[in-house]
Amino acid sequence: MNIEERIQAAMERHFQEIVSLDTPPTLRAAMEHALFPGGARIRPQLYMAVAMVSGDDCPALTDAGAVALELMHSASLVHDDMPCFDDALTRRGRPSVHAAFSEPVALLTGDALIVMAYQVLLSESTKRQLSGEQTHRILKMMSVLSQGVGAPHGIVAGQAWECESKVDLWKYQRAKTGALFTASVFMGAIAAGANPEPWREVGESLGDAYQIADDIRDVVGHFSLIGKPTGQDLEHGRPSAAQALGLEGANLEFKRLIECAANGVPFCDGREILRSMIYKEAERLVPQNEYQKFVQLAKLKNTHAASVL
Amino acid sequence: MNIEERIQAAMERHFQEIVSLDTPPTLRAAMEHALFPGGARIRPQLYMAVAMVSGDDCPALTDAGAVALELMHSASLVHDDMPCFDDALTRRGRPSVHAAFSEPVALLTGDALIVMAYQVLLSESTKRQLSGEQTHRILKMMSVLSQGVGAPHGIVAGQAWECESKVDLWKYQRAKTGALFTASVFMGAIAAGANPEPWREVGESLGDAYQIADDIRDVVGHFSLIGKPTGQDLEHGRPSAAQALGLEGANLEFKRLIECAANGVPFCDGREILRSMIYKEAERLVPQNEYQKFVQLAKLKNTHAASVL
Repeated sequence: MNIEERIQAAMERHFQEIVSLDTPPTLRAAMEHALFPGGARIRPQLYMAVAMVSGDDCPALTDAGAVALELMHSASLVHDDMPCFDDALTRRGRPSVHAAFSEPVALLTGDALIVMAYQVLLSESTKRQLSGEQTHRILKMMSVLSQGVGAPHGIVAGQAWECESKVDLWKYQRAKTGALFTASVFMGAIAAGANPEPWREVGESLGDAYQIADDIRDVVGHFSLIGKPTGQDLEHGRPSAAQALGLEGANLEFKRLIECAANGVPFCDGREILRSMIYKEAERLVPQNEYQKFVQLAKLKNTHAASVL
Repeated sequence: MNIEERIQAAMERHFQEIVSLDTPPTLRAAMEHALFPGGARIRPQLYMAVAMVSGDDCPALTDAGAVALELMHSASLVHDDMPCFDDALTRRGRPSVHAAFSEPVALLTGDALIVMAYQVLLSESTKRQLSGEQTHRILKMMSVLSQGVGAPHGIVAGQAWECESKVDLWKYQRAKTGALFTASVFMGAIAAGANPEPWREVGESLGDAYQIADDIRDVVGHFSLIGKPTGQDLEHGRPSAAQALGLEGANLEFKRLIECAANGVPFCDGREILRSMIYKEAERLVPQNEYQKFVQLAKLKNTHAASVL
């Protein structure tokens, strides 16, 4: 079973267990719609890769952490797509939750997914006889996850910066995307009983890179490629690295951050595997061939995109 | 320091600690608006009364549980008031969060309050050297709290039943209000290291009573008395005990449930104090003198309310 399959199996198992058939049927269907089929599931993959190179001595706990991360990320997408935010009718090429169900159901779905993230981790504390040290891993994983999501620095705070008239771009991006990436690598180490601190550089650099990639894709991307409407940043007046640095500056910064992340991987048995996973993900995020084609085309046609080159 | 003062002090302490000045200012202001000044804070009061008669041997942990409960309740109010649900412009006689700030900020505020409920409990696990048994109290409290809020039976599920075309009234009410009352008394016992099970009757009866009281007040209430618009159930086509049982049937059922709750208090040192607290709360919820006056007036005037007598 590879990492993707392991995450998928864990997602299905925990969903069946917690979102039982007693759940109001529409809420259950909406939660399922938000989670299956998933997107790239890059956060739980990164998390699991870190847990595996750190020993993965509690596989059920490792699985739970992966699910919790994906639940929090999915909750933020469901709420982010709602009419009062992005008003996005599609997500991953399918109707967004509020479009497929309704606004009230989308609101409740996000809430239920947030709570479920904790339920998944808490269920591990009751299922088997854990040592005191293992119990503390669960508490630490929940703390790190909460920091990645809540106030003052988590993804909710990141979205809240969008509602301020004066925003520090880096503070905003660090919270909006970086916080959950850092939480991912930290949780991976903690799940395996390892020290999370050596993984900070990887998490922070990847988080920053991912946000910049999002900004680049918002300018460059085609609807068919990323499965959601593009040009959202400009339309919603959101701070964007592609605007602040120019598109080419943003791409250079993206590549620099990927190097930081890859070089930041601590020396360990699976180091090369993790490094190549990071480079592969970078290529998926911003395919450099396509990027170069777009830049040339934009220069030729002098489109709107060219104005941010 | 009485119970109200103790809860207020704990709320302020944890708010300052978690929602630091690094939080986006609007999000911070909105969270503060949602929490201070509070409403009746009946859930944390009930919780704390149970913890105190159960020994209250970890006061800081008892405090954290009270705050976590109030945060979850407040989060549900913030989201419930939003335009896609009740579209309530007022709450506790002041503008609701979305009215005072904006819809996006209200959405994020609710999310942040949910996460903060866990942060408050988790902060207790790192602050001092706890025994393994005390660590397990925190995990159990979080599990019970999650059950009271999330799928399949918590308050989020309760609200989701409103989105179904076919609803079992008692299942709906048990989830919408009862779940968090049951969580309150359970958590109170657990916080003090006691067995929660003997408190089930109190929690469930009070939860049911509270929901029926809400339905009665929705028919009887005056805007000035409960600080939010009334007649909401009828307007939103929501299932209501006052409609199912008739107003007088609902009032009889309310009084029966209060008796069940008071008689259900396990034999312990503070039993009489807790019983009188329950009767006092019942009188605050549905003042019987005012109720009788309303019924007589409705009969005389043959108003809409009389149709549900």
